Amino acid sequence: MITNNNSVVGFIGIGVMGNHMARHILKAGYTLYIHSRTRSKTRPLCREGAVWQESVAQLAKQCPVIITMVGYPTDVESIYMGPEGILENAQSGTVTMDMTTSRPDLAADLYEKGQKKGIHCLDAPVTGGDIGAENATLSIMVGGKRDHFKKVLPILKLMGKNIHHQGPASSGQHTKMANQIAIAAGMVAMCEALSYAKKTGLSPEKVIENIGQGAAGSWSLNNLAPRIIKHDFSPGFYVKHFIKDMGIALESARALGLKTPGLELAADLYAQLAAQGCENEGTQALYKLFQK
Amino acid sequence: MITNNNSVVGFIGIGVMGNHMARHILKAGYTLYIHSRTRSKTRPLCREGAVWQESVAQLAKQCPVIITMVGYPTDVESIYMGPEGILENAQSGTVTMDMTTSRPDLAADLYEKGQKKGIHCLDAPVTGGDIGAENATLSIMVGGKRDHFKKVLPILKLMGKNIHHQGPASSGQHTKMANQIAIAAGMVAMCEALSYAKKTGLSPEKVIENIGQGAAGSWSLNNLAPRIIKHDFSPGFYVKHFIKDMGIALESARALGLKTPGLELAADLYAQLAAQGCENEGTQALYKLFQK
Repeated sequence: MITNNNSVVGFIGIGVMGNHMARHILKAGYTLYIHSRTRSKTRPLCREGAVWQESVAQLAKQCPVIITMVGYPTDVESIYMGPEGILENAQSGTVTMDMTTSRPDLAADLYEKGQKKGIHCLDAPVTGGDIGAENATLSIMVGGKRDHFKKVLPILKLMGKNIHHQGPASSGQHTKMANQIAIAAGMVAMCEALSYAKKTGLSPEKVIENIGQGAAGSWSLNNLAPRIIKHDFSPGFYVKHFIKDMGIALESARALGLKTPGLELAADLYAQLAAQGCENEGTQALYKLFQK
Repeated sequence: MITNNNSVVGFIGIGVMGNHMARHILKAGYTLYIHSRTRSKTRPLCREGAVWQESVAQLAKQCPVIITMVGYPTDVESIYMGPEGILENAQSGTVTMDMTTSRPDLAADLYEKGQKKGIHCLDAPVTGGDIGAENATLSIMVGGKRDHFKKVLPILKLMGKNIHHQGPASSGQHTKMANQIAIAAGMVAMCEALSYAKKTGLSPEKVIENIGQGAAGSWSLNNLAPRIIKHDFSPGFYVKHFIKDMGIALESARALGLKTPGLELAADLYAQLAAQGCENEGTQALYKLFQK
């Protein structure tokens, strides 16, 4: 197989989101090298033409552009750092994009360490959930050097619609934290409103139709409340990942001396939800707490 | 002046919202009778052709359709009840629409009292703020008999786009309470997210552009955050009225045995804001609390 090296993209982390995102790159004609902790999850993509790589190091050596989309900042650290990591194995000139929602300070650290080896690290977390990933309508918020952002923009455009360079390294993650903070207390609001509507005997569907486009309108109300009404608590976005994100946001907000009582309330309620065994459900499962 | 009595509409309460709403009815060719506590506020409409009425009773006697849009449930009570009120003075067959955000139990009470006199009371609160009122894009949520709803629907359509009959009397107010509950903790979320973005040195405008259409997207973020960025705290919707609404919602939720920690937090924060002298500002002034 003859491949144009410039058209090779590496993708690490084929989960709920990564699976859809990687597929868009593959369908656009890129040679796609993939690696994931659980190989079985990569089989559908491999059947469609993606090339399995046994290790991060093996993938990193061959790909001028590498995307990572994993679960936790500790996963990001283990993929980028150490003798088997991206920074030790990728060629000079490689551009990496960590699309995981991760710690802003880690993004800044990866950028610094990468620069010493001529590897250009971008932080490029996304929002829009599984639907956004599937429909290639994700919002992507990017931190790092503008030149490197421009270089990978054609690839980002395969996965999202609303893509912005927000500033230097860590700016993408900070923007994502602002996003998660806006969602956090917003989820509480949506669940309370829906509980109230049901309890007063209204038709929740008709209520959403009536208030979803006005001042109470939100993505959560228009996209997650309908799932709740259908008793669909399957994960578009996992409770456990949202708890992780809120933890990062709380830490970051505290370090900045910011008051975030709404975020604290949401983090507390989600911790209660996880303690009840719902950590692998979708964030809309918060509604269950209001039914007790 | 010869008037077709069927084309006469009475409008009581020419405030921030009522002024725009009444104008749409006037412009559509209806004969508009108006009354308001502060006569000076009605002058622009009167110059455009509206007819000033000295009292509620005088207006009520002449109008087959009466709209009320005032501040507090106590105002609604005083306009509808008592010897000088609508119920005592309107003709049998009159349809009233209280578009004030008011107590659901009061809406049910007005409906019952009205029925005894052949007066058909609808509760029809709105959402969409001053912009929605001006552009005739309000959402209107209606409780009461469907037949009476259908009768006034052409008039409601002059003021809004998204108009639903939600069920029997009080269903409009209950829907509006669900709306306010969704807004309450949502405002906290939006203010915290914006504070975080500013504190981390990001461009708040660019952050909103990036996250406003994704999972964090909300009417508040897309419409009120830009006002905050411009230091515009003028009232589209007053802090004092939102506090009133949240009070009604809290009372109603408690009576239903619902947990609403997000609503409680928001009500507490807005009470702090009012105590600092901001009760006549717009609800987006909540942001100021996060700047201390």
